[in-house]
Amino acid sequence: MSSQIAYNLRAFQTLKTDLFRQDFLLTWEHPEEELKAILNLAETFKLMHQAGQSFKSFDTGLAISIFRDNSTRTRFSFASAANALGLGLSDLDEQKSQVAHGETVRETANMISFLTEVIGIRDDMFLGEGHTYMQEVGAALSDGAEHGVLHRRPSIVNLQCDIDHPTQALADLCWLREHFGSVKNLKGKKIAMTWAYSPSYGKPLSVPQGIIGLMTRFGMDVRLAHPQGYDLIPEVVELAGKQAAESGGKFKVTTSMDEAFADADIVYPKSWAPYHVMEQRTRLLKVSDKEGLKHLEKDCLANNAKHTDWECTRAKMNLTAGQKALYMHCLPADITDVSCKAGEVSAEVFEQYRIPTYNEASYKPFVISALMFLTRMKDPGAKLEMLVNRAQNLYL
Amino acid sequence: MSSQIAYNLRAFQTLKTDLFRQDFLLTWEHPEEELKAILNLAETFKLMHQAGQSFKSFDTGLAISIFRDNSTRTRFSFASAANALGLGLSDLDEQKSQVAHGETVRETANMISFLTEVIGIRDDMFLGEGHTYMQEVGAALSDGAEHGVLHRRPSIVNLQCDIDHPTQALADLCWLREHFGSVKNLKGKKIAMTWAYSPSYGKPLSVPQGIIGLMTRFGMDVRLAHPQGYDLIPEVVELAGKQAAESGGKFKVTTSMDEAFADADIVYPKSWAPYHVMEQRTRLLKVSDKEGLKHLEKDCLANNAKHTDWECTRAKMNLTAGQKALYMHCLPADITDVSCKAGEVSAEVFEQYRIPTYNEASYKPFVISALMFLTRMKDPGAKLEMLVNRAQNLYL
Amino acid sequence: MSSQIAYNLRAFQTLKTDLFRQDFLLTWEHPEEELKAILNLAETFKLMHQAGQSFKSFDTGLAISIFRDNSTRTRFSFASAANALGLGLSDLDEQKSQVAHGETVRETANMISFLTEVIGIRDDMFLGEGHTYMQEVGAALSDGAEHGVLHRRPSIVNLQCDIDHPTQALADLCWLREHFGSVKNLKGKKIAMTWAYSPSYGKPLSVPQGIIGLMTRFGMDVRLAHPQGYDLIPEVVELAGKQAAESGGKFKVTTSMDEAFADADIVYPKSWAPYHVMEQRTRLLKVSDKEGLKHLEKDCLANNAKHTDWECTRAKMNLTAGQKALYMHCLPADITDVSCKAGEVSAEVFEQYRIPTYNEASYKPFVISALMFLTRMKDPGAKLEMLVNRAQNLYL
Repeated sequence: MSSQIAYNLRAFQTLKTDLFRQDFLLTWEHPEEELKAILNLAETFKLMHQAGQSFKSFDTGLAISIFRDNSTRTRFSFASAANALGLGLSDLDEQKSQVAHGETVRETANMISFLTEVIGIRDDMFLGEGHTYMQEVGAALSDGAEHGVLHRRPSIVNLQCDIDHPTQALADLCWLREHFGSVKNLKGKKIAMTWAYSPSYGKPLSVPQGIIGLMTRFGMDVRLAHPQGYDLIPEVVELAGKQAAESGGKFKVTTSMDEAFADADIVYPKSWAPYHVMEQRTRLLKVSDKEGLKHLEKDCLANNAKHTDWECTRAKMNLTAGQKALYMHCLPADITDVSCKAGEVSAEVFEQYRIPTYNEASYKPFVISALMFLTRMKDPGAKLEMLVNRAQNLYL
Repeated sequence: MSSQIAYNLRAFQTLKTDLFRQDFLLTWEHPEEELKAILNLAETFKLMHQAGQSFKSFDTGLAISIFRDNSTRTRFSFASAANALGLGLSDLDEQKSQVAHGETVRETANMISFLTEVIGIRDDMFLGEGHTYMQEVGAALSDGAEHGVLHRRPSIVNLQCDIDHPTQALADLCWLREHFGSVKNLKGKKIAMTWAYSPSYGKPLSVPQGIIGLMTRFGMDVRLAHPQGYDLIPEVVELAGKQAAESGGKFKVTTSMDEAFADADIVYPKSWAPYHVMEQRTRLLKVSDKEGLKHLEKDCLANNAKHTDWECTRAKMNLTAGQKALYMHCLPADITDVSCKAGEVSAEVFEQYRIPTYNEASYKPFVISALMFLTRMKDPGAKLEMLVNRAQNLYL
Repeated sequence: MSSQIAYNLRAFQTLKTDLFRQDFLLTWEHPEEELKAILNLAETFKLMHQAGQSFKSFDTGLAISIFRDNSTRTRFSFASAANALGLGLSDLDEQKSQVAHGETVRETANMISFLTEVIGIRDDMFLGEGHTYMQEVGAALSDGAEHGVLHRRPSIVNLQCDIDHPTQALADLCWLREHFGSVKNLKGKKIAMTWAYSPSYGKPLSVPQGIIGLMTRFGMDVRLAHPQGYDLIPEVVELAGKQAAESGGKFKVTTSMDEAFADADIVYPKSWAPYHVMEQRTRLLKVSDKEGLKHLEKDCLANNAKHTDWECTRAKMNLTAGQKALYMHCLPADITDVSCKAGEVSAEVFEQYRIPTYNEASYKPFVISALMFLTRMKDPGAKLEMLVNRAQNLYL
């Protein structure tokens, strides 16, 4: 057993978690100690994988994914996590089924869950809907478990909703922890979560909301920057302020990218659609107003185009602490002259930080593994000890 | 080991089965003792799962599903069963392959089967075709095994054809056995398998046929009720009569829903298309007669609309034994004012029996598990004993 | 342990391979000893499967498939191999993702690979592209591994590109080895790889190229026959000649099917599109020239139609050694009067050799298993010994 794994195991066993057969929907619903346990476990699983040691924890059982939007990295992260833990993956293709609204969510949630351990859901397209849908599925599972229909209530893992993208934000935090040495070291570090220009439209708000909703809990100096009108959901912004105050950090909203970048230790420039546009879009989609949607997209793109200067260039990076802030992105980024004519980041800056963004992404399968493990194991500390003691290199 | 599991194991070991490397296509092709072994095993697997004990039986091997019609619950039941037994699931998407007619069925059946244990097939759309197709695949597999192309002939499990829906009917029987305490207790119980109104068209006949083809074997009083013209396949109706006579039960066909419901212990109101309509539909589809199909659908829906009073309401339920017959449905039901304006069952009755219908459905993955196990294991009694002795709770 | 398995194991342990964490793209990039190890291992796995012994080698890990063209047998062979070795299968559906060109191949290759062992790719549609794409993915994986993003670089297995179809050619060689008793016995045997008429258009060149690129290495007398103009990639033809000279065999190109069939021990009649047509097609597809493509298809089919006499009939078979050469095909074949009006082979000849072609195909899952094993295990000889010693019949 590597000394780092042994050290992590002992630390993990001191952390109390209360996730057994629970859902994981929004990071801010969970106490700091629980988040630390997740970070610790994700890192431990990563170390075990690096050492060629299996952390398979289940003999059988299904992990179901429901993707209501396209996905590559989260899809493969979920598949990898399920496989690594020993669960079989089944994707619910809603075009071949009846999961929809009202009565049927309740029914289908139970019908697919008789031998299911975890349900991962991505539902990030419509403001006001994704989180609500996950809660509906959760209520249906609780109902089924209470009535004895389900032997064990499966856990829901939010793979991105309209409010939060917790597996992304937690993977980002894992990466910051590695990069800066510890969570404690993040105290006082300045992170700029800023809007950036993109020629596309309708990008969800969940990443910036997830970042300000998580990073304000560790004493960081969090700056949210976006052009006038590109607001996030007000409740999340308010929460970020409250959390920053409680953690001894700072939270400030600005309409200047430069101000956010000034002396920043970390920058996270990323496009999103304005809150009110997403609201309007959801309304128009509900009534299938194609003409209205076309107008909205046109207006929105025209508005975006006024802010092409919100690009993460070398000049902008030079404003940051020591001119070398850590650049972060959930990927794929809109890279100027590579994936589009003008985008979120210059090719030069992206190329410089390309490998760090891959490292950032590499934590996601392990974060999802940790969430699956913690929501299913009654005594995760004892189970992890078993896994660690069992481990042996599998590649002869 | 729970005493119930131990009891079941001993009982299971007294039951003779002859399913090794065989197919399971129609319940009435199998002796009563075999069916009892299936029920016993399905219940044992369910008890083991409830106790958190794995019944994984394979180290590797594929379970292939071929769905020629949409499916949610059977799809997930099959996936769950394969996973629980340790088989990998592979879905054959016919749009990406060449399984079709004649020569190619023979070839493709072999090409996908070199390392395959079980093939589950749903083919319920065309009268006269689904069962025939399964037989064709079976003959191809036998041919391949006889010539040494296949090391072990895979078993076919019928996941719904034009004649029978055996995994549904057996799950229903498991549920009746649980509800009434034993199969013996079903003797003399009156079950009303009745047509019910639905605003949709072309629903297969396999569920009502499966029910009358199975329940007449246990001394029950089986009533088949439908409006004039909504006949099932004559051979199955005839078989049901013969089986009822042999088992000391009754079988009667009536055109009155009330008569069927009168003093019934169990009611199963469910829509289907008339036999002759399904025949005509198959003929029209074969020649791609779109105009003819449109007319047929229109006529059929118009005819259905004359029978909106075939709805399972509280008033109808009041006709049943003690006004509290057990309501059954294979789900999803067409619920009046919930999933449609007028349907098979009133919202009040469905809501009252919602959880029981979920319990009914919960047996399907375990029935499929039992069929997979019994068709693959040479000595299922010894293998089950191994599994039961090995079992330990997996959730620390 | 069967004596054949024990014998194979000892022979395998004398063969040096250098495939650990490497890709397998073209057979001619690998020394003869490595190919012999693959043949030996594929046969050993087949014998173990026949004996009901598992050769599961992994505890967890993903095998990813990327199919840029339809597939049944290779798809199921890959799924079977992954499952048999203990890997979970994940299919990358490019329509739901961003694997494309340039920047993104590099990124996506890493994003899907954090816990991945093997990536199988089929990309055979465009001349000049499939092999290049696999190399691009490979370079991206090497880059990720060198930077520590990937703990272990996954291996790429070519499931058919524009140049070679190595898992097909190796399965064919396994079958020849079984049929003729040994690889040594193939020395001097005459094999006719000939074009054959098909009413379809645009069939890839990778099978004939794979055959002449592999069979010329074992002292065989290889004849490539096709009508004037139906050339293969010149570099592969040149390579075949060079290899034949080195191995003490022969390689000759002819425009007469009869000449190729004369005294042949093995015949492999199979349609393909001319090299220059495939080149032109790729060019037209790149500029989406629909009119040009329509013309090209029409011209090509008209040209094909001049050669309907290139059919493998009984009369043609009578030209072969003892009138009973072994007929081979990668399947599905275009069979005259069965799958088309006029095709590659007469119904009589195909039916006579139907089971042998199934035996030929049956090796593919085991060849892919062998490639997965050899590219992942550091000491494959020791690991195989472990598997063989562990083996016990799993079907009670």
